[in-house]
This record gives sequence, structure tokens and C-alpha cells, in this order.
Amino acid sequence: MNLIILFKDDFIDAKTVRLRGRRLMHVTTVQRASVGDSLRVGLLNGDIGTGVVTHLDEEYLEMDVKLGTRPPAALPLTLVLALPRPKVLRRILLSAGSMGVKKIFLINAYRVEKSYWQSPLLDPAAMNTQLLLGLEQARDTMLPEVLLRPLFKPFVEDELPAIIEGTLPLVAHPVASEPCPRQVREPVVLALGPEGGFIPFEIEKFLSLGFTSVHLGERILRVETAVPFIISRLL
Amino acid sequence: MNLIILFKDDFIDAKTVRLRGRRLMHVTTVQRASVGDSLRVGLLNGDIGTGVVTHLDEEYLEMDVKLGTRPPAALPLTLVLALPRPKVLRRILLSAGSMGVKKIFLINAYRVEKSYWQSPLLDPAAMNTQLLLGLEQARDTMLPEVLLRPLFKPFVEDELPAIIEGTLPLVAHPVASEPCPRQVREPVVLALGPEGGFIPFEIEKFLSLGFTSVHLGERILRVETAVPFIISRLL
Repeated sequence: MNLIILFKDDFIDAKTVRLRGRRLMHVTTVQRASVGDSLRVGLLNGDIGTGVVTHLDEEYLEMDVKLGTRPPAALPLTLVLALPRPKVLRRILLSAGSMGVKKIFLINAYRVEKSYWQSPLLDPAAMNTQLLLGLEQARDTMLPEVLLRPLFKPFVEDELPAIIEGTLPLVAHPVASEPCPRQVREPVVLALGPEGGFIPFEIEKFLSLGFTSVHLGERILRVETAVPFIISRLL
Repeated sequence: MNLIILFKDDFIDAKTVRLRGRRLMHVTTVQRASVGDSLRVGLLNGDIGTGVVTHLDEEYLEMDVKLGTRPPAALPLTLVLALPRPKVLRRILLSAGSMGVKKIFLINAYRVEKSYWQSPLLDPAAMNTQLLLGLEQARDTMLPEVLLRPLFKPFVEDELPAIIEGTLPLVAHPVASEPCPRQVREPVVLALGPEGGFIPFEIEKFLSLGFTSVHLGERILRVETAVPFIISRLL
């Protein structure tokens, strides 16, 4: 936790927050802060700043909060991800969020296991937990949006054309003929397939909308490795 | 498993392998292969090629193997990693291995928890399991070497100078003044700190040997995200 996310509910007056639970625990056991210490804080979807500890015991923590710095810029990249295995999804939400991705579509594909759509991890509260961990990691406050699209065709045909408007749309595909471009200067929509990849019909669909299919070299990477690898390449 | 790793022991004659256990299971339940199918295989630390299934039942699988293609080139990068939490280490071994890293030093640092050095995951057999998964993922055969260095000072003072000879030595550090370089044309030694980072004394030690400290932008990434992110940037 490199920044403590504050919620409006934490404020007991205009500039004072009172924290309990996980955040109190972190401040006492990991940060080992004491009264008078200044901690990095940020208001969810708002500014970042500092909180000076004014009270600290086993029950709660109080801080005098001063905000006023904007959070880091969002990444101009929308992720369109074939729904991965739930435990992989958890890590990707945190990792993509920590890199500044602000919009993630989780879509169906032929090789996505049907059971993944039943996972309790797709519950908004469960996903938010991961997204908040990503914000705390990256010292950001702007909560990413995650949208579930359990039907491939309607998503690709009816929704995706508007999403890619004005962007460079890329689909990662191990057998693509073009390498992934570097240091792209425009917003990107990046589509990533499931384990085993998108099937030819799906790739064709993306290509028909104007996507370019790109590879990452000879090696095939797991999606959790591919996400930071490609994002870093594009930046 | 995008390639089946074969061991010398698997060969029952010059060109026939017999497989049981995990690999048999994978071929039948994931790849759903039948007699006559051709699968991608590779000899550990040797060439890659194809295996044509000649026998398949619940007990074992036999293939006629033809090798002769070199595995993908190794990445000219040595990773010097402060020992992470065991479950993070597992994923990093797989992920770094899949990207082609062939030498990893796991070192101690002030903020590495002592208990991590007692983890059963540091057992060579346990580490090899992850490294083999990384090879199978990336269609590679060359097993990475992982070296444990539980004493920071002797490693940095006595061993590291020779390791960085002829390379660009970089240490990732959130408050560094230089951004991580791109598309480096020489071998790299990349040092990455523990959660919370290297302490000033440790950073000074790296700098005194000629390391450059580099940052990844405003955001602080977890080590498992930072590894593919930095490697992709350097390539």
C-alpha cells in the first residue's frame, strides 16, 4: 500500500478522517506510523495528498488530511480481455489497474470455459477489492471500470465499433505477421484472447472491424505476463 | 503447455518416447490428441521438433520424435531479484522463464523477510517445476539457472562486479531520476528490490559498482508486474 485510499464516508469533518480495519492495521503493522507522521493518501476518484496522524490506537486512526495533487494520468488504453481463469483475473485486475488501465471489457470467446462466468470473483465488490489494491499500489485514485460482456458476437458487432473509434485497435495473436508496435502516440484498444488463443472466426471478426493482429515474438506468454509486456511496449 | 518437454529418460529407443503422468494427462484431456496427431515437443536443453503419436491409452503415450530446430534465442538479461514472497516467486520464475531469462540470482536485502529463505519453494525441484512450466508455455527448452544468494554484501562486493562485466547494469528504483531505457542493444543485468524497495545503503552499493538507477514512471508496480514491464521496455 503506497497510498491509502480514502472514501467520503471516512471523513468525520471537512479535513479529518477516521480509519479502522484493514487500513488501520496496515498503518500500524506495515507502515509502523505514529502520531505526527505524514502518510500519502488519496480520495477515491479525487486528489491525492497527505494525512498527518493525530490519533492512533488499537481501535482507530485519525488523520488531518490535505489533498490537492492530481493522481497520475490514466493510460490511454482500453483492454478487451477474454475472461481468464478467476484466480488469474484477480491478479490481472490488480496489475492492469496499477499500470493505469481505466476500462476493461471482460468478454466471452470460444475457448473461455463457461464455468468462469459463474465465479464469485465477478461480483462487483470482489473486483473492486482488486482494483483498489491496484490503486493503492500505484498511488492512484481513479477506479477503473470493468464491464462484463458474456456474449461475443453482440459485443463485437454492436458495441466494439464505437469503442475503437479514433483508436489504434490491436489484437494480440501468436501467429500474427506484424510485431506489436512501440511507443504508440494514439489511444489503443487492445484485445487479448483466452488460453489457447482466439479461434480463427474470432480473429476474423476483429480484423473485419479494422483491428491489426500483432505478435510478441517467438515466445507465447501467459495472459498475466502478456498484459504488462504489451502495455509497456505500447507506451 | 505449448510444447511438451522431453527428458533423455523418456526415450525407449533413438526416436521413440513413452510418456505417463502429467504429460499424458495433458495430451489426452487438454490437447485431446489421438494416434496419428503431431505434437510440438522439445528435448530439455536441446532441440525442438514434433512427435507423432503412435500409441495412446490410459497408461501411456508413445511418440515418434523428430527434433532439429533450435529453441528461441535466450534473452541477454540477467535478473538480480530480492527474494520475493514465495507465492510471488513461483509466478515470477514461470513468467521470467517464459520471456527467455536464463539466469536469475535471488538475493537478500534489508526488506526481504527472513522467513522467505526457509520456503520449500526454494527447493531446486520445486523451482524446476515452475521453470519447466515456463519453458512449456514459451515453447523453449533451455532451463534457466536460479542461484540463491542469502547474503547481500558478499554477493554484491565479491560476485556482482564480474557478473556485470560487459553489460548495462540497471537497478529499478521508484525515486530514480532516469527513466528505464528502451531497446537496449547490449546485455543487461537488472536488479529489482523487495516490496518497499532497496534501502539507501543497498542502492548506494549498486551505484558504486556502476549501476544506473531507473524508474518506470509515476506509478509503483508490484515486482510480478514490473518484471515483464521492464523486460519488454528493454527489448
